[in-house]
Amino acid sequence: MLGDCLDHVRAKAPLIHCITNYVTVNDVANMLLACGGSPVMSDDVEEVEEVTALAAGLCLNIGTLNRRTVPSMFAAGRRANTLGHPVVLDPVGAGSSALRTRTARELAQILRPAVIRCNISEIKALTAGLETTRGVDAAPADAVTEDSLAAGVSFVKSAAVRLGAVAAVTGAIDLVSDGETCYVIRNGRPEMGRITGTGCQLSALTAAFLAANPGRSLEAAAAAAAAMGLAGEIGWANMAPADGNATYRNRIIDAIFHMDGQALDKGANYEIR
Amino acid sequence: MLGDCLDHVRAKAPLIHCITNYVTVNDVANMLLACGGSPVMSDDVEEVEEVTALAAGLCLNIGTLNRRTVPSMFAAGRRANTLGHPVVLDPVGAGSSALRTRTARELAQILRPAVIRCNISEIKALTAGLETTRGVDAAPADAVTEDSLAAGVSFVKSAAVRLGAVAAVTGAIDLVSDGETCYVIRNGRPEMGRITGTGCQLSALTAAFLAANPGRSLEAAAAAAAAMGLAGEIGWANMAPADGNATYRNRIIDAIFHMDGQALDKGANYEIR
Amino acid sequence: MLGDCLDHVRAKAPLIHCITNYVTVNDVANMLLACGGSPVMSDDVEEVEEVTALAAGLCLNIGTLNRRTVPSMFAAGRRANTLGHPVVLDPVGAGSSALRTRTARELAQILRPAVIRCNISEIKALTAGLETTRGVDAAPADAVTEDSLAAGVSFVKSAAVRLGAVAAVTGAIDLVSDGETCYVIRNGRPEMGRITGTGCQLSALTAAFLAANPGRSLEAAAAAAAAMGLAGEIGWANMAPADGNATYRNRIIDAIFHMDGQALDKGANYEIR
Repeated sequence: MLGDCLDHVRAKAPLIHCITNYVTVNDVANMLLACGGSPVMSDDVEEVEEVTALAAGLCLNIGTLNRRTVPSMFAAGRRANTLGHPVVLDPVGAGSSALRTRTARELAQILRPAVIRCNISEIKALTAGLETTRGVDAAPADAVTEDSLAAGVSFVKSAAVRLGAVAAVTGAIDLVSDGETCYVIRNGRPEMGRITGTGCQLSALTAAFLAANPGRSLEAAAAAAAAMGLAGEIGWANMAPADGNATYRNRIIDAIFHMDGQALDKGANYEIR
Repeated sequence: MLGDCLDHVRAKAPLIHCITNYVTVNDVANMLLACGGSPVMSDDVEEVEEVTALAAGLCLNIGTLNRRTVPSMFAAGRRANTLGHPVVLDPVGAGSSALRTRTARELAQILRPAVIRCNISEIKALTAGLETTRGVDAAPADAVTEDSLAAGVSFVKSAAVRLGAVAAVTGAIDLVSDGETCYVIRNGRPEMGRITGTGCQLSALTAAFLAANPGRSLEAAAAAAAAMGLAGEIGWANMAPADGNATYRNRIIDAIFHMDGQALDKGANYEIR
Repeated sequence: MLGDCLDHVRAKAPLIHCITNYVTVNDVANMLLACGGSPVMSDDVEEVEEVTALAAGLCLNIGTLNRRTVPSMFAAGRRANTLGHPVVLDPVGAGSSALRTRTARELAQILRPAVIRCNISEIKALTAGLETTRGVDAAPADAVTEDSLAAGVSFVKSAAVRLGAVAAVTGAIDLVSDGETCYVIRNGRPEMGRITGTGCQLSALTAAFLAANPGRSLEAAAAAAAAMGLAGEIGWANMAPADGNATYRNRIIDAIFHMDGQALDKGANYEIR
């Protein structure tokens, strides 16, 4: 069951080091606190190795990639690798510029992330050089639907093998695979796409789940994705008529704040392929 | 009517590239999503030209101006100019430092923005070298009131001519002019000044309205200003007694999320001079 | 009484210049607006001296310390010192990296801040070289409780003397001392630790209180700490069952928005030792 992965986060309160974008960083920090973890954001190359050594996991997010922090990502990532801390890579917008695509690929290859959490367009840019990314959202043509599910599962399994990481590819249907097994998760709400940063929040959540569940990368990543989707459902159910995407953003974090393993097990909607 | 400008945003879902400050960037992104657009934030000079080429409009905001991103603003702006994408300039705090005043003037002159969206103190700093800016808010002596309205309209018209752009000067009364015609908009609430970033949000909203309404810069900018003011009114009406400025921030974005062209036409309170 | 310190903030509306981290900067700005102050965020070394000259107080926060803005902090701080503007230092995460510890100590020594606002682990790192900081939160072993209160008061008094500043050390119990007198403040809720940035917000609030209450640094810092804690209590009382830490964040800022000196005097729970 996936619920115990969340209970372990609350029991262990892992400190997660994030080198992340400045757009969604506040929500990322509050999401980590909501799940029972603790955030530390630090991106100067002079200190990131020390900071990541204090933490239990590392989340690298290239949402506002800039040349000052690329060396910081590599330095922190190498140290995390050495220490055996799980690294989660969120290659935001890979495919939308040469800098992003190249940096994302190098981070994926050199740092051996435990999980790569992204959308379907980004993972295509990482693996195949297909560049259909539209800004930071998946291109409509790439979307995994019930009709294209078998092909999607096959693609994500193959991507996981090629990347040597658990691939957590989220969208209308979330696919989380280590190359052999694929969790097909049907939680979430389409309105989550109207909020900035749900993907970034999930990436950090995934790092917390990994840090608290050593040796269970696949289940931990699937549990984080299911928890986020379920929070999207609970948060939406708590919306008042005049509430919109700004309030929804808070309601999702609030839902994680109140979620426990039992609720996650009850609400998680997935199959294994 | 202004309402169709909003309907066009929802129909076309323009991707807006923002090089913007880190104070209000999350609200800016959620505001773009609320109106039906899509945000992409990117500020490294190595990628901004590629990113802006994928977008439909560009919003440049100097709220936390720094020397790393000034070249990025020029590079993105030149590419946007070449591609015919509308550029909106928000010269936050122009007049409060030599760096800001100089950079804002250069951006205005070199990049030919379609719209300059700012407060009255900032546009004075841009046009006349008058430096009465108080931080990022308009100086009280500059405020446009019903008593000083004729002079304000005249000034904004003249500023639009001198700047070669639609001037969207917001405050208690919003004045939006292309040099010949001036929209005098009386939407909004004074409490909007107690929230950080309503101006930044409006600038990005303006970029989305421009991108979705080609050839109609004046109406699009006026529609965006009216929509923002109307959202301030609707958001305030939705406040509970204990709610304050943090909740109000969300309520305004939420109001845009629910607004359509018909509601904007019904609620917009303006005259043309 | 402490309440008049808040009333003076609302009467004087001080502009506070913040060089602060990008994680919590939006909440910091909205907190300053909530209390009746006004924020200006600016961190480029080319403009910070001009910007701080326009302001009434300066808040330096090293939460996402990086080498670009360290010289900006010193430049702004020196100018603020020269102008007699109060400087508040928030040494976020001091003790968690050599860069942070060294920079925080240099800022404390060279800039003569009026108040250093931090947690107990951070002030230990500043004064004694003890490095037990866990990310940006206090280490559990350092926490000041009723059992360790006398030792805590003694330590904070001594730290204030050694640092030449009012020490405002917040946690389950807040201790604010100028070296002779110590306010022991028992406002607040433990759930405030589940929100990112309450400390950062308090540091900026402290700068506003200092700027509006010249010559009363100790009382102003104590009043800000009591106001923040009281807002945490009021905000919690306004929570609905499904609300979590994201909504709580807004409720605390909202509570400051509605608080006046009378309410602060009524709700402040402190003794002087």
